[in-house]
Amino acid sequence: MSDRRTGILEAATRIIARRGVRGLRMGELAAEAGVSTSLIYYHFTDRAGVLQQTLEFISDRADRYTAGDAGGPDAPPRAADPRTDLEQVLLLELQDTVDVRENSIAWGELRATAVFEPDLREELARSTHSWVHDVADLLARADPLGTAPAHAAAAERLTALVEGLSVRWLSGSLPLDQARRLLRGAVEAELERSRP
Amino acid sequence: MSDRRTGILEAATRIIARRGVRGLRMGELAAEAGVSTSLIYYHFTDRAGVLQQTLEFISDRADRYTAGDAGGPDAPPRAADPRTDLEQVLLLELQDTVDVRENSIAWGELRATAVFEPDLREELARSTHSWVHDVADLLARADPLGTAPAHAAAAERLTALVEGLSVRWLSGSLPLDQARRLLRGAVEAELERSRP
Repeated sequence: MSDRRTGILEAATRIIARRGVRGLRMGELAAEAGVSTSLIYYHFTDRAGVLQQTLEFISDRADRYTAGDAGGPDAPPRAADPRTDLEQVLLLELQDTVDVRENSIAWGELRATAVFEPDLREELARSTHSWVHDVADLLARADPLGTAPAHAAAAERLTALVEGLSVRWLSGSLPLDQARRLLRGAVEAELERSRP
Repeated sequence: MSDRRTGILEAATRIIARRGVRGLRMGELAAEAGVSTSLIYYHFTDRAGVLQQTLEFISDRADRYTAGDAGGPDAPPRAADPRTDLEQVLLLELQDTVDVRENSIAWGELRATAVFEPDLREELARSTHSWVHDVADLLARADPLGTAPAHAAAAERLTALVEGLSVRWLSGSLPLDQARRLLRGAVEAELERSRP
Protein backbone atom coordinates (compact mmCIF):
# COMPACT_ATOMS: atom_id res chain seq x y z
CA MET A 1 0.00 0.00 0.00
CA SER A 2 1.39 3.45 -0.84
CA ASP A 3 2.35 5.74 2.07
CA ARG A 4 -0.10 8.37 0.84
CA ARG A 5 -2.94 5.86 0.77
CA THR A 6 -2.07 4.57 4.25
CA GLY A 7 -1.87 8.14 5.52
CA ILE A 8 -5.38 8.86 4.25
CA LEU A 9 -6.76 5.71 5.90
CA GLU A 10 -5.06 6.56 9.19
CA ALA A 11 -6.56 10.04 9.03
CA ALA A 12 -10.03 8.59 8.26
CA THR A 13 -9.76 6.27 11.27
CA ARG A 14 -8.78 9.18 13.53
CA ILE A 15 -11.70 11.31 12.36
CA ILE A 16 -14.21 8.46 12.73
CA ALA A 17 -12.90 7.68 16.24
CA ARG A 18 -13.18 11.36 17.16
CA ARG A 19 -16.57 12.28 15.75
CA GLY A 20 -18.14 9.25 14.14
CA VAL A 21 -18.68 8.20 10.53
CA ARG A 22 -21.17 10.98 9.95
CA GLY A 23 -18.51 13.50 11.01
CA LEU A 24 -16.32 12.39 8.10
CA ARG A 25 -16.33 14.96 5.28
CA MET A 26 -13.98 14.67 2.32
CA GLY A 27 -12.60 18.20 2.78
CA GLU A 28 -11.75 17.57 6.43
CA LEU A 29 -10.25 14.21 5.61
CA ALA A 30 -7.97 15.89 3.05
CA ALA A 31 -6.93 18.49 5.64
CA GLU A 32 -6.33 15.85 8.33
CA ALA A 33 -4.26 13.70 5.93
CA GLY A 34 -2.44 16.73 4.45
CA VAL A 35 -3.40 15.85 0.86
CA SER A 36 -5.74 17.27 -1.79
CA THR A 37 -9.34 16.05 -2.06
CA SER A 38 -8.63 15.04 -5.65
CA LEU A 39 -5.98 12.60 -4.42
CA ILE A 40 -8.59 11.05 -2.13
CA TYR A 41 -11.01 10.65 -5.03
CA TYR A 42 -8.18 9.23 -7.15
CA HIS A 43 -7.45 6.50 -4.56
CA PHE A 44 -10.95 5.77 -3.28
CA THR A 45 -13.44 6.96 -5.94
CA ASP A 46 -16.02 8.22 -3.40
CA ARG A 47 -16.99 8.40 0.28
CA ALA A 48 -18.32 4.82 0.23
CA GLY A 49 -14.91 3.74 -1.09
CA VAL A 50 -13.15 5.55 1.77
CA LEU A 51 -15.41 3.86 4.34
CA GLN A 52 -14.97 0.38 2.86
CA GLN A 53 -11.19 0.73 2.69
CA THR A 54 -11.06 2.18 6.22
CA LEU A 55 -12.94 -0.86 7.49
CA GLU A 56 -10.40 -3.15 5.84
CA PHE A 57 -7.55 -1.04 7.22
CA ILE A 58 -8.93 -1.17 10.79
CA SER A 59 -9.46 -4.89 10.52
CA ASP A 60 -5.88 -5.45 9.28
CA ARG A 61 -4.51 -3.22 12.02
CA ALA A 62 -6.38 -5.23 14.67
CA ASP A 63 -4.95 -8.41 13.13
CA ARG A 64 -1.52 -6.86 13.53
CA TYR A 65 -1.80 -5.99 17.20
CA THR A 66 -3.34 -9.37 18.02
CA ALA A 67 -1.34 -11.54 15.61
CA GLY A 68 1.38 -12.82 17.92
CA ASP A 69 4.49 -14.09 16.18
CA ALA A 70 3.26 -13.12 12.72
CA GLY A 71 2.68 -9.58 13.86
CA GLY A 72 6.03 -7.86 13.72
CA PRO A 73 7.95 -6.11 16.50
CA ASP A 74 4.92 -4.57 18.28
CA ALA A 75 2.97 -7.79 18.61
CA PRO A 76 2.83 -9.61 21.94
CA PRO A 77 4.80 -12.86 22.13
CA ARG A 78 2.75 -15.93 21.44
CA ALA A 79 2.03 -17.81 24.69
CA ALA A 80 3.22 -21.39 25.04
CA ASP A 81 -0.21 -22.52 26.22
CA PRO A 82 -2.87 -22.30 23.47
CA ARG A 83 -5.56 -21.44 25.98
CA THR A 84 -3.61 -18.47 27.32
CA ASP A 85 -2.93 -17.50 23.74
CA LEU A 86 -6.65 -17.48 22.89
CA GLU A 87 -7.46 -15.46 26.00
CA GLN A 88 -4.67 -12.95 25.29
CA VAL A 89 -5.68 -12.40 21.69
CA LEU A 90 -9.27 -11.64 22.72
CA LEU A 91 -8.23 -9.44 25.66
CA LEU A 92 -6.02 -7.33 23.39
CA GLU A 93 -9.24 -5.84 21.97
CA LEU A 94 -10.12 -4.50 25.42
CA GLN A 95 -7.21 -2.23 26.28
CA ASP A 96 -7.05 1.43 27.14
CA THR A 97 -4.32 2.38 24.68
CA VAL A 98 -4.64 5.06 22.00
CA ASP A 99 -4.45 2.53 19.15
CA VAL A 100 -6.93 0.01 20.51
CA ARG A 101 -9.37 2.67 21.66
CA GLU A 102 -9.23 4.38 18.26
CA ASN A 103 -9.61 1.08 16.44
CA SER A 104 -12.48 -0.10 18.65
CA ILE A 105 -14.42 3.14 18.40
CA ALA A 106 -13.99 3.26 14.62
CA TRP A 107 -14.96 -0.41 14.22
CA GLY A 108 -18.07 0.03 16.40
CA GLU A 109 -19.03 3.15 14.43
CA LEU A 110 -18.69 1.39 11.09
CA ARG A 111 -20.70 -1.55 12.47
CA ALA A 112 -23.46 0.81 13.67
CA THR A 113 -23.41 2.74 10.40
CA ALA A 114 -23.80 -0.44 8.33
CA VAL A 115 -27.27 -0.86 9.88
CA PHE A 116 -28.26 2.21 7.82
CA GLU A 117 -25.78 2.04 4.93
CA PRO A 118 -25.99 -1.25 2.98
CA ASP A 119 -22.84 -0.29 0.98
CA LEU A 120 -20.69 -1.15 3.98
CA ARG A 121 -22.18 -4.55 4.69
CA GLU A 122 -20.19 -6.75 2.34
CA GLU A 123 -16.81 -5.53 3.58
CA LEU A 124 -18.00 -5.67 7.19
CA ALA A 125 -19.23 -9.26 6.83
CA ARG A 126 -15.91 -10.21 5.23
CA SER A 127 -13.85 -8.64 8.04
CA THR A 128 -16.11 -10.21 10.68
CA HIS A 129 -15.83 -13.67 9.14
CA SER A 130 -12.07 -13.41 8.91
CA TRP A 131 -11.89 -12.46 12.62
CA VAL A 132 -14.24 -15.32 13.61
CA HIS A 133 -12.13 -17.71 11.53
CA ASP A 134 -8.89 -16.66 13.26
CA VAL A 135 -10.46 -17.13 16.70
CA ALA A 136 -11.89 -20.53 15.67
CA ASP A 137 -8.33 -21.60 14.78
CA LEU A 138 -7.11 -20.58 18.24
CA LEU A 139 -10.02 -22.47 19.81
CA ALA A 140 -9.12 -25.58 17.82
CA ARG A 141 -5.62 -25.43 19.27
CA ALA A 142 -6.87 -24.82 22.82
CA ASP A 143 -9.49 -27.55 22.55
CA PRO A 144 -8.23 -30.18 20.06
CA LEU A 145 -10.99 -32.68 20.93
CA GLY A 146 -13.82 -30.30 19.99
CA THR A 147 -15.48 -30.31 16.56
CA ALA A 148 -15.02 -27.65 13.89
CA PRO A 149 -18.70 -26.52 14.06
CA ALA A 150 -18.42 -26.18 17.85
CA HIS A 151 -15.26 -24.07 17.46
CA ALA A 152 -16.93 -21.90 14.81
CA ALA A 153 -19.96 -21.29 17.05
CA ALA A 154 -17.81 -20.50 20.10
CA ALA A 155 -15.67 -18.12 18.01
CA GLU A 156 -18.74 -16.30 16.70
CA ARG A 157 -20.02 -15.94 20.29
CA LEU A 158 -16.69 -14.81 21.77
CA THR A 159 -16.07 -12.19 19.08
CA ALA A 160 -19.69 -10.90 19.28
CA LEU A 161 -19.21 -10.69 23.05
CA VAL A 162 -15.99 -8.69 22.56
CA GLU A 163 -17.97 -6.23 20.42
CA GLY A 164 -20.79 -6.06 22.98
CA LEU A 165 -18.42 -5.54 25.92
CA SER A 166 -16.28 -3.07 24.00
CA VAL A 167 -19.16 -0.74 23.15
CA ARG A 168 -20.44 -0.96 26.75
CA TRP A 169 -17.00 0.11 27.94
CA LEU A 170 -16.66 2.90 25.36
CA SER A 171 -20.16 4.22 26.08
CA GLY A 172 -19.55 4.34 29.83
CA SER A 173 -21.77 1.45 30.96
CA LEU A 174 -19.01 -0.94 32.06
CA PRO A 175 -15.53 -0.40 33.57
CA LEU A 176 -12.71 -1.82 31.46
CA ASP A 177 -11.34 -4.20 34.11
CA GLN A 178 -14.79 -5.70 34.56
CA ALA A 179 -15.18 -6.14 30.80
CA ARG A 180 -11.86 -8.00 30.74
CA ARG A 181 -12.88 -10.20 33.67
CA LEU A 182 -16.18 -11.05 32.00
CA LEU A 183 -14.43 -11.98 28.77
CA ARG A 184 -12.05 -14.30 30.64
CA GLY A 185 -15.10 -15.94 32.20
CA ALA A 186 -16.64 -16.48 28.76
CA VAL A 187 -13.49 -18.17 27.42
CA GLU A 188 -13.58 -20.40 30.48
CA ALA A 189 -17.26 -21.26 29.97
CA GLU A 190 -16.72 -22.10 26.29
CA LEU A 191 -13.71 -24.32 27.00
CA GLU A 192 -15.25 -26.04 30.03
CA ARG A 193 -18.33 -26.94 28.11
CA SER A 194 -16.41 -28.70 25.38
CA ARG A 195 -14.54 -30.83 27.90
CA PRO A 196 -15.52 -34.52 27.52
CA MET B 1 -47.28 9.43 30.75
CA SER B 2 -49.47 11.70 28.64
CA ASP B 3 -50.55 10.42 25.21
CA ARG B 4 -48.88 13.39 23.55
CA ARG B 5 -45.58 12.67 25.29
CA THR B 6 -45.79 8.96 24.39
CA GLY B 7 -46.62 9.87 20.80
CA ILE B 8 -43.49 12.05 20.58
CA LEU B 9 -41.28 9.28 21.99
CA GLU B 10 -42.77 6.73 19.58
CA ALA B 11 -42.07 9.12 16.72
CA ALA B 12 -38.48 9.68 17.93
CA THR B 13 -37.90 5.91 18.08
CA ARG B 14 -39.24 5.49 14.51
CA ILE B 15 -36.98 8.26 13.17
CA ILE B 16 -33.88 6.91 14.97
CA ALA B 17 -34.60 3.39 13.69
CA ARG B 18 -35.04 4.73 10.15
CA ARG B 19 -32.09 7.11 9.86
CA GLY B 20 -30.09 7.06 13.07
CA VAL B 21 -29.74 9.49 15.95
CA ARG B 22 -27.97 12.03 13.77
CA GLY B 23 -30.96 11.99 11.44
CA LEU B 24 -33.19 13.26 14.26
CA ARG B 25 -34.05 16.94 13.84
CA MET B 26 -36.58 18.65 16.08
CA GLY B 27 -38.62 19.95 13.12
CA GLU B 28 -38.92 16.50 11.60
CA LEU B 29 -39.75 14.96 14.95
CA ALA B 30 -42.60 17.46 15.33
CA ALA B 31 -43.89 16.60 11.86
CA GLU B 32 -43.61 12.83 12.47
CA ALA B 33 -45.41 13.15 15.84
CA GLY B 34 -48.00 15.61 14.46
CA VAL B 35 -47.28 18.21 17.15
CA SER B 36 -45.60 21.64 17.29
CA THR B 37 -41.88 21.95 18.03
CA SER B 38 -42.75 24.13 21.03
CA LEU B 39 -44.66 21.22 22.58
CA ILE B 40 -41.54 19.08 22.19
CA TYR B 41 -39.42 21.71 23.93
CA TYR B 42 -42.09 22.02 26.61
CA HIS B 43 -41.94 18.27 27.39
CA PHE B 44 -38.24 17.57 26.83
CA THR B 45 -36.36 20.91 27.14
CA ASP B 46 -33.88 20.13 24.35
CA ARG B 47 -32.57 17.47 21.97
CA ALA B 48 -30.51 15.82 24.74
CA GLY B 49 -33.73 15.54 26.76
CA VAL B 50 -35.50 13.88 23.82
CA LEU B 51 -32.66 11.35 23.43
CA GLN B 52 -32.52 10.52 27.14
CA GLN B 53 -36.27 10.03 27.38
CA THR B 54 -36.33 7.98 24.18
CA LEU B 55 -33.70 5.69 25.66
CA GLU B 56 -35.86 5.18 28.74
CA PHE B 57 -38.94 4.64 26.55
CA ILE B 58 -37.16 2.00 24.43
CA SER B 59 -35.90 0.26 27.52
CA ASP B 60 -39.40 0.18 29.09
CA ARG B 61 -40.90 -1.07 25.84
CA ALA B 62 -38.35 -3.91 25.71
CA ASP B 63 -39.24 -4.76 29.31
CA ARG B 64 -42.86 -4.94 28.22
CA TYR B 65 -42.35 -7.35 25.36
CA THR B 66 -40.05 -9.58 27.41
CA ALA B 67 -41.81 -9.28 30.78
CA GLY B 68 -43.90 -12.43 30.80
CA ASP B 69 -46.92 -12.40 33.12
CA ALA B 70 -46.28 -8.83 34.23
CA GLY B 71 -46.27 -7.67 30.65
CA GLY B 72 -49.91 -7.27 29.71
CA PRO B 73 -51.84 -8.94 26.89
CA ASP B 74 -49.03 -8.88 24.26
CA ALA B 75 -46.42 -10.49 26.46
CA PRO B 76 -45.55 -14.16 25.98
CA PRO B 77 -46.75 -16.54 28.67
CA ARG B 78 -44.15 -17.23 31.34
CA ALA B 79 -42.74 -20.75 30.88
CA ALA B 80 -43.10 -23.25 33.70
CA ASP B 81 -39.38 -24.09 33.54
CA PRO B 82 -37.15 -21.19 34.70
CA ARG B 83 -34.44 -22.16 32.24
CA THR B 84 -36.83 -22.01 29.28
CA ASP B 85 -38.09 -18.73 30.67
CA LEU B 86 -34.58 -17.24 30.73
CA GLU B 87 -33.89 -18.46 27.20
CA GLN B 88 -37.19 -17.09 25.90
CA VAL B 89 -36.73 -13.67 27.45
CA LEU B 90 -33.29 -13.32 25.83
CA LEU B 91 -34.45 -14.69 22.47
CA LEU B 92 -37.29 -12.16 22.36
CA GLU B 93 -34.63 -9.52 21.63
CA LEU B 94 -33.69 -11.36 18.43
CA GLN B 95 -36.90 -11.42 16.42
CA ASP B 96 -37.74 -10.12 12.99
CA THR B 97 -40.88 -8.20 13.95
CA VAL B 98 -41.45 -4.48 13.34
CA ASP B 99 -41.40 -3.63 17.06
CA VAL B 100 -38.30 -5.59 18.02
CA ARG B 101 -36.37 -4.51 14.94
CA GLU B 102 -37.24 -0.87 15.57
CA ASN B 103 -36.37 -1.14 19.26
CA SER B 104 -33.10 -2.96 18.59
CA ILE B 105 -31.93 -0.55 15.90
CA ALA B 106 -32.77 2.47 18.07
CA TRP B 107 -31.12 0.96 21.15
CA GLY B 108 -27.95 0.13 19.17
CA GLU B 109 -27.90 3.63 17.71
CA LEU B 110 -28.22 5.28 21.11
CA ARG B 111 -25.50 2.97 22.44
CA ALA B 112 -23.18 3.89 19.54
CA THR B 113 -24.00 7.59 19.91
CA ALA B 114 -23.16 7.58 23.63
CA VAL B 115 -19.54 6.83 22.67
CA PHE B 116 -19.47 10.40 21.29
CA GLU B 117 -22.15 12.11 23.40
CA PRO B 118 -21.46 11.87 27.17
CA ASP B 119 -24.94 13.35 27.92
CA LEU B 120 -26.49 10.01 27.08
CA ARG B 121 -24.27 7.86 29.24
CA GLU B 122 -25.99 8.10 32.60
CA GLU B 123 -29.40 7.07 31.28
CA LEU B 124 -27.81 4.35 29.14
CA ALA B 125 -25.89 2.90 32.11
CA ARG B 126 -29.08 2.95 34.17
CA SER B 127 -31.10 1.12 31.49
CA THR B 128 -28.28 -1.38 30.96
CA HIS B 129 -28.00 -2.13 34.68
CA SER B 130 -31.73 -2.60 35.01
CA TRP B 131 -31.70 -5.09 32.10
CA VAL B 132 -28.70 -6.96 33.58
CA HIS B 133 -30.48 -7.06 36.94
CA ASP B 134 -33.65 -8.59 35.45
CA VAL B 135 -31.64 -11.27 33.63
CA ALA B 136 -29.64 -12.01 36.80
CA ASP B 137 -32.98 -12.66 38.59
CA LEU B 138 -33.98 -15.12 35.88
CA LEU B 139 -30.59 -16.82 36.17
CA ALA B 140 -31.02 -17.13 39.93
CA ARG B 141 -34.29 -18.95 39.36
CA ALA B 142 -32.82 -21.20 36.64
CA ASP B 143 -29.72 -21.95 38.72
CA PRO B 144 -30.65 -21.68 42.41
CA LEU B 145 -27.35 -23.19 43.60
CA GLY B 146 -25.22 -20.51 41.93
CA THR B 147 -23.98 -17.40 43.75
CA ALA B 148 -25.28 -13.86 43.22
CA PRO B 149 -21.93 -12.59 41.81
CA ALA B 150 -21.87 -15.51 39.36
CA HIS B 151 -25.42 -14.69 38.23
CA ALA B 152 -24.55 -11.02 37.85
CA ALA B 153 -21.49 -11.83 35.71
CA ALA B 154 -23.42 -14.30 33.54
CA ALA B 155 -26.24 -11.76 33.11
CA GLU B 156 -23.78 -9.03 32.05
CA ARG B 157 -22.22 -11.45 29.53
CA LEU B 158 -25.52 -12.73 28.13
CA THR B 159 -26.98 -9.25 27.66
CA ALA B 160 -23.73 -7.92 26.11
CA LEU B 161 -23.83 -10.94 23.79
CA VAL B 162 -27.43 -10.13 22.82
CA GLU B 163 -26.26 -6.62 21.87
CA GLY B 164 -23.27 -7.97 19.93
CA LEU B 165 -25.36 -10.57 18.05
CA SER B 166 -28.17 -8.11 17.44
CA VAL B 167 -25.96 -5.52 15.72
CA ARG B 168 -24.29 -8.27 13.65
CA TRP B 169 -27.72 -9.38 12.50
CA LEU B 170 -28.94 -5.82 11.79
CA SER B 171 -25.74 -4.92 9.92
CA GLY B 172 -25.95 -8.00 7.69
CA SER B 173 -23.03 -10.03 9.12
CA LEU B 174 -25.10 -12.83 10.71
CA PRO B 175 -28.41 -14.49 9.78
CA LEU B 176 -31.08 -14.18 12.47
CA ASP B 177 -31.61 -17.93 12.97
CA GLN B 178 -27.89 -18.38 13.54
CA ALA B 179 -27.83 -15.52 16.05
CA ARG B 180 -30.67 -17.21 17.95
CA ARG B 181 -28.89 -20.57 17.88
CA LEU B 182 -25.68 -18.99 19.19
CA LEU B 183 -27.55 -17.28 22.01
CA ARG B 184 -29.16 -20.57 23.04
CA GLY B 185 -25.67 -22.09 23.13
CA ALA B 186 -24.44 -19.29 25.40
CA VAL B 187 -27.29 -19.83 27.88
CA GLU B 188 -26.40 -23.51 27.89
CA ALA B 189 -22.69 -22.78 28.47
CA GLU B 190 -23.44 -20.40 31.36
CA LEU B 191 -25.82 -22.84 33.07
CA GLU B 192 -23.64 -25.90 32.53
CA ARG B 193 -20.65 -24.20 34.04
CA SER B 194 -22.45 -23.38 37.24
CA ARG B 195 -23.56 -26.97 37.70
CA PRO B 196 -21.88 -28.47 40.78
